[in-house]
Amino acid sequence: MAGKKVLIVYAHQEPRSFNGALKDVAVAELSRQGCSVTVSDLYALNFEPRATGKDITGSLSNPGFFNYGVETHEAYKKRSLSSDIIEEQKKLQEADLVIFQFPLYWFSVPAVLKGWMDRVLCQGFAFDFPGSYDDGLLKGKLAILSLTTAGTASMYSKTGVNGDFRYFLWPLQHGTLHFCGFKVLAPQISFGPEMASEEERKKMVASWAQRLKTLWEEEPIHCSPPWYFGQ
Amino acid sequence: MAGKKVLIVYAHQEPRSFNGALKDVAVAELSRQGCSVTVSDLYALNFEPRATGKDITGSLSNPGFFNYGVETHEAYKKRSLSSDIIEEQKKLQEADLVIFQFPLYWFSVPAVLKGWMDRVLCQGFAFDFPGSYDDGLLKGKLAILSLTTAGTASMYSKTGVNGDFRYFLWPLQHGTLHFCGFKVLAPQISFGPEMASEEERKKMVASWAQRLKTLWEEEPIHCSPPWYFGQ
Repeated sequence: MAGKKVLIVYAHQEPRSFNGALKDVAVAELSRQGCSVTVSDLYALNFEPRATGKDITGSLSNPGFFNYGVETHEAYKKRSLSSDIIEEQKKLQEADLVIFQFPLYWFSVPAVLKGWMDRVLCQGFAFDFPGSYDDGLLKGKLAILSLTTAGTASMYSKTGVNGDFRYFLWPLQHGTLHFCGFKVLAPQISFGPEMASEEERKKMVASWAQRLKTLWEEEPIHCSPPWYFGQ
Repeated sequence: MAGKKVLIVYAHQEPRSFNGALKDVAVAELSRQGCSVTVSDLYALNFEPRATGKDITGSLSNPGFFNYGVETHEAYKKRSLSSDIIEEQKKLQEADLVIFQFPLYWFSVPAVLKGWMDRVLCQGFAFDFPGSYDDGLLKGKLAILSLTTAGTASMYSKTGVNGDFRYFLWPLQHGTLHFCGFKVLAPQISFGPEMASEEERKKMVASWAQRLKTLWEEEPIHCSPPWYFGQ
């Protein structure tokens, strides 16, 4: 898929980590295909997660009563969002596919990546009213979560202590990505790499690299409650 | 319930906001009952959300390969976590009840609060193996999410565009609070205050104040899949 643009939003502190390895093989494989790959390495960027008044560089609509959603919507229209947000929005705007690579923290993304979602996906840019879910403003783009867990696959099954892995994907895939218009590909979940052998870890990395070879041919999931909570 | 200790973990930028009003009435009502109330005002504290090596003040177990979970677990045991984490752990350790007051951001908590969870609830302090779910190390404490949404209650129903509100509570109530041993009280959800009239907003605040009068008598929810995904 030469010419396709890919953004990898990557949230791990250690370049030599298993998450780092998954990110590296994605860069390698997609580059080999002729895609143009950009990585937002959030810890390396020291990306700001907090949603505050500093995200608006111009004057506020209502300096006496700060409303983050209202102010960032206005600032987006006036092109007065802070430069780190604008930079990420540019990368995202250009991307055909976004890969989120992260370790699961508390059944969700690490705070640095949550902050990326909170701040970059602002009203006017990622969604509007109307302009959400199938009409979200990032319509036409693909997204995939590639995540690692501490627990095993059986712990993340319907009868496991953590419940089905699809349960925790709902806020991320449906409430965030689908809401913004993305078509969501089935997640790539690498279960329990820290408990696995070196050989098993290598297999997990290879399996991700292999999947990426034909990722562009995949059908997105049908992102609605039955996928998550169906029998 | 005189003598009980309550920690309110509060994540809103604007003191005069609706979230601020909910926090304020909780402080007033619980103080009136004779409880000792502490507020962690995360934006006012400029609380750090990023999980990094800065959270460990001593030397790392493995400086050549940074593993956040391993290093913070070790640092907890050696009392060498950063002072902001220790401070929150002390407040949490003393609390009988923790109230999380926040606006819903992307079907979840704002990044600043996610960071509080990622950093404060470390292994050895909040959980261990064994020492999770009903045996979590914060066993004996109560927790409640008090949150506001942008959407209406009907949008957060089984047939609404956002799905049932219980779906998005799973990672927070089960994957985080229950995992650490908390007993979880039914959430206090104030739907769509920004679309409501001033009078309706006042009613929502009053209803929270009223509920707090008898909160200590409430039975916790049965925090398992049927509560979230049952028919």
